Amino acid sequence: MAISEKNHPLMLGLAGFGTVGSGLAKILDENQADIMRRCGRNVRIKSILVRDPAKKRPYPFPQGSRLCADASALVSDPEIDVIVELMGGIEAAEKLVRMALEAGKHVVTANKALLAEKGAPLFKLAAEKGLHLGYEASVCGGIPIVQTLQEGLAANSITSISGILNGTSNYILSAMTGSGLPFEVALKQAQELGFAEADPTLDIEGFDAAHKLTLLIRLAWGVDYPFTQLPITGITRVAAEDIQFAREFGYNIKLLGQARMEDGRLEAGVFPTLVPNNYLLAKVGHSYNAVRIEGNAVGSIFLHGLGAGDLPTGSAVAADILNIARGALANNTGYAIANLPKAQIMPPREAKASYYFRLMVLDRPGALRDVAAAMADHNISIAQAIQKGQENVVPLMFMTHDTTARDVEAALQQVKGTGILSAEPVHYRVMPPPAK
Amino acid sequence: MAISEKNHPLMLGLAGFGTVGSGLAKILDENQADIMRRCGRNVRIKSILVRDPAKKRPYPFPQGSRLCADASALVSDPEIDVIVELMGGIEAAEKLVRMALEAGKHVVTANKALLAEKGAPLFKLAAEKGLHLGYEASVCGGIPIVQTLQEGLAANSITSISGILNGTSNYILSAMTGSGLPFEVALKQAQELGFAEADPTLDIEGFDAAHKLTLLIRLAWGVDYPFTQLPITGITRVAAEDIQFAREFGYNIKLLGQARMEDGRLEAGVFPTLVPNNYLLAKVGHSYNAVRIEGNAVGSIFLHGLGAGDLPTGSAVAADILNIARGALANNTGYAIANLPKAQIMPPREAKASYYFRLMVLDRPGALRDVAAAMADHNISIAQAIQKGQENVVPLMFMTHDTTARDVEAALQQVKGTGILSAEPVHYRVMPPPAK
Repeated sequence: MAISEKNHPLMLGLAGFGTVGSGLAKILDENQADIMRRCGRNVRIKSILVRDPAKKRPYPFPQGSRLCADASALVSDPEIDVIVELMGGIEAAEKLVRMALEAGKHVVTANKALLAEKGAPLFKLAAEKGLHLGYEASVCGGIPIVQTLQEGLAANSITSISGILNGTSNYILSAMTGSGLPFEVALKQAQELGFAEADPTLDIEGFDAAHKLTLLIRLAWGVDYPFTQLPITGITRVAAEDIQFAREFGYNIKLLGQARMEDGRLEAGVFPTLVPNNYLLAKVGHSYNAVRIEGNAVGSIFLHGLGAGDLPTGSAVAADILNIARGALANNTGYAIANLPKAQIMPPREAKASYYFRLMVLDRPGALRDVAAAMADHNISIAQAIQKGQENVVPLMFMTHDTTARDVEAALQQVKGTGILSAEPVHYRVMPPPAK
Repeated sequence: MAISEKNHPLMLGLAGFGTVGSGLAKILDENQADIMRRCGRNVRIKSILVRDPAKKRPYPFPQGSRLCADASALVSDPEIDVIVELMGGIEAAEKLVRMALEAGKHVVTANKALLAEKGAPLFKLAAEKGLHLGYEASVCGGIPIVQTLQEGLAANSITSISGILNGTSNYILSAMTGSGLPFEVALKQAQELGFAEADPTLDIEGFDAAHKLTLLIRLAWGVDYPFTQLPITGITRVAAEDIQFAREFGYNIKLLGQARMEDGRLEAGVFPTLVPNNYLLAKVGHSYNAVRIEGNAVGSIFLHGLGAGDLPTGSAVAADILNIARGALANNTGYAIANLPKAQIMPPREAKASYYFRLMVLDRPGALRDVAAAMADHNISIAQAIQKGQENVVPLMFMTHDTTARDVEAALQQVKGTGILSAEPVHYRVMPPPAK
C-alpha cells in the first residue's frame, strides 16, 4: 500500500447495523483520536446495507454514511476498501463475503457460524486474492484469541485448547452453581436479564461454542475439522444436583469446548465438563468467556474477557479493521498454505477421559455389586465415590480414572441391563490435567 | 518483501546464548515443521555472539551456526536479517541494538531494562528506518501482551492496567500467603528452587516490574513515562502478619504494577497492593504473571501465563521473529508517530486510593482516640477495622475509603507525633474497583 493511500481514510461498507454494527460505529466515533494516533489515518463508515431502513436502532447511523439496500452496489463501490459483514446467518452472508472477496475487497466478519460451516473455500479465495478475511470478533468477542493463535503462539506446537466459549451457557451454569436453581429457572432469569435470547437454542445446545471451537482448531493446528463431525452436548440436561455433587468432589461444571492433539489425531468436542475448582477456568463467572491454550514452548496461557455485547465485539471487529488500515499483512488462517488439510480425527469412542457418574440405584441387595461389576468388567477404575442415603432410590456418584467413551457406554449398557436403575444414568467428562 | 526473498530462510544473528537464547534455539529446532507451515519459510540461526565460547550451555549451539566474538561483524553480515539481542544489561545492549538498526537489520529483544530506560531513541530510529524492533518477550514472557495492546485493543481508549509483572515476587508472596513464612525464609526457598536469583534485587525491589510497566504504559497510551519518575516499592518489607490481616479483610497482597488515566493524567507505580480475593488477579499463584487491562470498548481483559523461563520467553522472542519472517508490518510502539510525547503525570501525592493500615499502638488510654483523630483531621474515612488484643502493644488494622497519598502521609505524621506507636506504621494501597 502506497503512503498516499495510507493517509486517506479507510472506507468501510457495513452489512447489518444491529448490536455489533452499532457498537462498531460508536467505537469509531468516540475513539477517533486514539485510532488516528495509532493508525495514522481515519476509518469511516461510508455505506450501510440494511433490510429495513425504518427499523429502530440502538445507535444512530453514523454521520456521513448512507444506507444502501443492494449488496452488489455495496461490494462494487470503488471507494469502499473493506466490507464488514455483521448480518449473521449463513447463506446470505456467504454470498456477500464471496462477492466482496471476488470484487477485491477486504472482509471483516463476526460470523462464527459462516466460517465454521463454510469457511474453507472463503479462506482459500481470500488467500488467492491476497485479501484480509478478518474474524477476531467471531471467537470470544473482545478477547484477542484469534491473533494470539495466528501470531503470539505461532512458534508453538499446540497441545490443547479448553475454553468457556459461550457466555449464555456460562451465565446459566454460574447461576445454577451460585444459587442451586434448576436449569429452566436459570434460563428464564438469563432471558429476562438479556443474557439469553428468546430462542436460546444455538447457545444452550452448544452449537455456538462448537462454531468457535471449529475456528480455534483451524487456527491451532492448521486443519479443517468438519463441523458436522464435532461431538456436541449442550447444558439443557445439566441437573442442579450434579452441580452440587460435583462441588463435593471439588469441581465446577462448565460447558467446555475442548480439543487436544493425541499422537497425531485430534480429540475434540463441546460437553458439560467437571473443571477442578482450583483452575482459573473454574472461576470464570457470569457471562464471561475464557480460553486456556497449552503449547509446547509457552506452557499454559489463559485469556479471559467479555465474549459478547456491542462494545466488546465491536472492539474486536475494529481491531481487524485497524490492522487493515495500517496496511498489515493478511494472515487469515495463520498458515502459509491456501488449502488446509482435513483434520485427522480420533473417533469419539476412543477418546480417553476420566468421568463423573450419577446413578439412581434401587435400594436392593446386590445393587452396588452390580454397578461395581459392570465398571470392573469394562476396565473402569473408580477414583472416589459418594453414596447418599435416601428412601427406595440411592443416588450413587463416582469419579473414574481415565477410560474410553466406548467402555463407558458398554458399562452403562451392562448396568441398565441389570434393571437396578430408576432413571437414565448421568455422566460427564472431567477436564484432563495439563499435558506432560 | 518479494516472494523469492520470502522463500529464503530468515537468517538470525543472536547476541547472547543463555537461558532465553537456548530456549529459542530449541523451539526453532523442535517446532521447525510447524513454523514452516505457518510462515512458508524456515528460520535459521547463522551466528551467535558470545563472550566466552568455552562456557557450558544448557543447550548445544544450533547446527550450522557459528560463534562470533565481535558485535560489528555480527551486525554487518549481509546475510543476517534479524539481530536477536539476548545479552541483557543496558549499555552494551544499547550499543548493539543501535548498530543493528543503523545497519538496516530488524531487532528482536527481551531486554525490558534497555527499552524502559533507553527505549525512546531506539524506537525513533527503528521508525525512521522502517524496521522491526520487536519486544514481545520483554513483558511477561510468553503472554502476548505487547501485541494485544498494539493491535487487539487498538480501537480502545485504555483506562487502566494492573499486572502481576514479576514472577519471583509473586512466588515469594504466594509462599508467604500459603504457609505464613516470613519474607526472608520465602526468599531463600525461592532461591533454592530457582525462582529467585542469587542477587534478587531487581525482582524483589520492584525494578523489573517497573521496567515492564513503563513499556505497558508506552503501548497503552502512546507516551513516554520517564522510568526515573515511576514510584516503586518492592516486597522486602511485606510482613507475614500483614498478609494474614489482609486475608481477614478479604484480600491477597500482590506486587502490582498499576497505571490508570485520570482526567488526562497518568497515575502509575509499582507497590505491594491488597487485591480483593474474588478477583482473578488475586488467584495468580506460584511464579505466574498476569495482566488486567480495561478499555472503554472491550471492558476488562485478563491474560495469564508464564512470565519467565527458557521456553515461555523463547516462545515470545520467536513470535516476533516469525512476524518478521512473514513480512509483517513493523508496529513497534503501536503508534504512527516517531516521537511519542512525554506522559502527563499525576503527582504521586495527589493519587487517590483506599488503603490498608497496620499500626502497633501502645496500650494506653486515648491511643485509639488519637489515631481516629489523626485520620479524621485529614479527611480519611475508615471503612472497616480490626483490633487484636495483645499485651502492651495492640495491633490496629483498618481499611480506608479513597484518600490521597498526601493525606495519608500527613495523618501518619500526626499519629507518630503523639508517641503512641511502638513501630513504624505500615500502609498499603488497595486495588481500585474497575472504572465506570
